[in-house]
Amino acid sequence: MSPFRPEIDHMSGYRPGEQPQEGGWIKLNTNENPYPASPRVVEALTAAAQGKLNLYPDPLGTEFCLAAAATLGLDPDWILPGNGSDEVLTVLTRSFAGATDQIAYPYPSYILYETLANLQGVRHARLPLEPDWSWNFDTVGKTIEQSKLIFVPNPNSPSGNRWAFDDLLALVPPHGMLVLDEAYGDFADHPHRCELLNSTAGKQIVVTRTLSKSYSLAGIRFGFAIAHPDTIVGLRKVKDSYNCDVLALAAATAAIVDQDWMHQNTARIRQTRHRLAVQLKQRGFTVVDSQTNFVWVTHPSGQHRTIYEDLKAKKILVRHMVFEEVSWAKDHCLDGLRITVGTDAEIDCLLDALNW
Amino acid sequence: MSPFRPEIDHMSGYRPGEQPQEGGWIKLNTNENPYPASPRVVEALTAAAQGKLNLYPDPLGTEFCLAAAATLGLDPDWILPGNGSDEVLTVLTRSFAGATDQIAYPYPSYILYETLANLQGVRHARLPLEPDWSWNFDTVGKTIEQSKLIFVPNPNSPSGNRWAFDDLLALVPPHGMLVLDEAYGDFADHPHRCELLNSTAGKQIVVTRTLSKSYSLAGIRFGFAIAHPDTIVGLRKVKDSYNCDVLALAAATAAIVDQDWMHQNTARIRQTRHRLAVQLKQRGFTVVDSQTNFVWVTHPSGQHRTIYEDLKAKKILVRHMVFEEVSWAKDHCLDGLRITVGTDAEIDCLLDALNW
Repeated sequence: MSPFRPEIDHMSGYRPGEQPQEGGWIKLNTNENPYPASPRVVEALTAAAQGKLNLYPDPLGTEFCLAAAATLGLDPDWILPGNGSDEVLTVLTRSFAGATDQIAYPYPSYILYETLANLQGVRHARLPLEPDWSWNFDTVGKTIEQSKLIFVPNPNSPSGNRWAFDDLLALVPPHGMLVLDEAYGDFADHPHRCELLNSTAGKQIVVTRTLSKSYSLAGIRFGFAIAHPDTIVGLRKVKDSYNCDVLALAAATAAIVDQDWMHQNTARIRQTRHRLAVQLKQRGFTVVDSQTNFVWVTHPSGQHRTIYEDLKAKKILVRHMVFEEVSWAKDHCLDGLRITVGTDAEIDCLLDALNW
Repeated sequence: MSPFRPEIDHMSGYRPGEQPQEGGWIKLNTNENPYPASPRVVEALTAAAQGKLNLYPDPLGTEFCLAAAATLGLDPDWILPGNGSDEVLTVLTRSFAGATDQIAYPYPSYILYETLANLQGVRHARLPLEPDWSWNFDTVGKTIEQSKLIFVPNPNSPSGNRWAFDDLLALVPPHGMLVLDEAYGDFADHPHRCELLNSTAGKQIVVTRTLSKSYSLAGIRFGFAIAHPDTIVGLRKVKDSYNCDVLALAAATAAIVDQDWMHQNTARIRQTRHRLAVQLKQRGFTVVDSQTNFVWVTHPSGQHRTIYEDLKAKKILVRHMVFEEVSWAKDHCLDGLRITVGTDAEIDCLLDALNW
């Protein structure tokens, strides 16, 4: 007999995304930033490597909190650092979702929220999005009311669109918390600045950010939550005591101080994104207007799997995604390609390789 | 109304151990290793800092698993790397403890297991230890039978004693899993080598290790589980996908390859531990025979709080610990001092400062 909780046994095993270890690939499949991290990060890490690694890190990540708060115009007690925003989302789930509570999230969207609900062993419900990725509050209103915790990635993945403040406020559950996962927020034309935390519903909102994408630091695993200090105090009880190591804290602090570097790279990615979208449309693809570092594209032929495989044969990886049970999709199955915005040279290779 | 689960609201807030940030302290309170990490770790980190930080790490930590497995004489699929053994213990709790299950652990012992059970929202029970830190299986047998998951630190904290294989096998719950937390295992005179994983109860046992203590790497947060591959496959579903960052993986791999460095430092600590115990006994303290990098001491006067404060006034930090509801202790309250084995020079300062 398996010793695992039945929920765990019923889950399918973790399948890592394609991460070829040998060189020669153009990786446009996991939304990594193609540009390197700030040179200040490398300096900070080199110094930290010479430090007292035998001692525990600061359990609260005070220096990072001070730096992040200064950038955001908040007090440091609004910040909770985490081992990637994955860990922050796990902590939020464990903090708010009790045995009889329900978690909800948009669909099609980031599939991790469903996994988190399954791991927590709680009920979960999808909030179906419209074909143009907008909300129909007549459809989702009741589920919102019944939920304790709602995860909303804004901008959304795989679509790349971003929702406006009014929509987001309508997503706050009357008796629960709304988590705005802003992993891709810095790539928007006009990034949000946690404005909703100052709204009347502000105490029911948590914003999460990551340094993986806009700060080019997927390798160091660093994310953070931004919320009212009362919420942060509670979340601290749930996280592991020393959840961020000295090196990640040093790297993250250096990265967030160097806002210019991040802004330069996100600006370059916005430019390339525009060019990529125009070119794909010229080739007959449908492209959602993206506020992220990826684009969601479909082709009238529906041959997304074939396109993915053709590209892979040429050592270019994009993400072929399939979402079942989508009422408005052909055969109730939405599929398409999510393509990360790489460097201009990488995108040129992609466009050359795309024989469509 | 609080949005937190009631279990979280009822928990007291996290109180970080005393980690003075300014210099001049002798820190003998959190069982850090006083010796630096292997020079190979610093080299590996310096190289990794120059690497592709913009890309995600290997989600399975393959290189570390290969290195650890070679050291232990196991196959790499017996290893699960984690963000400190804290994360590994959290993953184990979430994997095995369902809503109606019970977690048990010795008492007095490491208080984290109780916190993990509270966070998971499941029943928990203490397995009371005898005054000489041995087991009375007549007393604890029924609780063991009723438990799904049992955590046992071996060697134990705060006492520092280690239990024999026969005792450990008697702790395997008939319908559940035994976790042997070997955080301090490398400091034993004759360290265990996961022998019990090959016993008939082997599939019901998970061993956890950390690089924080014997490898002098508390700052990088790295631990791992060792268990049958069927168990590891299940645990992988529960951990965050990218739970270990590229730097921690590089440091951990370099550290575990350099076994000589670790053995040198643990040997030094064993020598100092012996000297410390002898000297404390000469001063009238009762000292438990320790197999760890700390000693548990009590004084007939019972003035442990005062001793702790006297030392603190001299900038020497030790840990004053109080365990309530201990049937055999005076007023049912066991208190004493847990003193980390520092360098010889640090221990000399401690002994000079101890006016008892």
